[in-house]
Amino acid sequence: MEVINVKKKFELFDDHWSPRIITSLNGQDVKIAKVQGEFVWHDHANEDELFYIIKGSLEIHFEGSIKTLQTGDMLTIPKGVSHKPVAKEECWLLLFEPQSTKHTGEVQDELTVSTYQKI
Amino acid sequence: MEVINVKKKFELFDDHWSPRIITSLNGQDVKIAKVQGEFVWHDHANEDELFYIIKGSLEIHFEGSIKTLQTGDMLTIPKGVSHKPVAKEECWLLLFEPQSTKHTGEVQDELTVSTYQKI
Repeated sequence: MEVINVKKKFELFDDHWSPRIITSLNGQDVKIAKVQGEFVWHDHANEDELFYIIKGSLEIHFEGSIKTLQTGDMLTIPKGVSHKPVAKEECWLLLFEPQSTKHTGEVQDELTVSTYQKI
Repeated sequence: MEVINVKKKFELFDDHWSPRIITSLNGQDVKIAKVQGEFVWHDHANEDELFYIIKGSLEIHFEGSIKTLQTGDMLTIPKGVSHKPVAKEECWLLLFEPQSTKHTGEVQDELTVSTYQKI
């Protein structure tokens, strides 16, 4: 059992849109990511997804609407809901999702990551 | 889909050791709780449990050791591991755990809560 300081884990990497696993439990991963710019439209057919903003702000685009999350905000996106995260400046995210969750759902993009490093 | 400001959710209640659900996904709940004083020794036979400290500090006592978590720290406690949370001053916690998780495992205590309010 390791006490994890979440902000210190963010100091271990600098690349964008590449989540790292910081802990796992009950078949779920807690991941952190730094993001900046536009991600790809995608959905997860079988997994709900949780975004929690550790630093910065994040727009999440949906079909017909945009939600803006600030530091300390959390949003659960139900499975099957298409979305595109957009960060005008660097944003630090915490994600909570099943280990089966694919990065960009069934979409393959140059940003797509297929494995996640544990840090 | 509701954007949840976690700290504002903490403003909605004052009692200790009584977790509230702020969102649910994939059979898991995200709960928040204010705690102060000593909780009861317990374990969860089938569920790993995650503590994330939003404000304050928390000791988690184990058989033979104590881990101290500060604001921004996270700890996953594997299923079956007996533990007792202790907060010398009020501490704000975020918990990730399966919806099946009982508050104090198989222990019944005056602090035990059997249902969780969604806020």
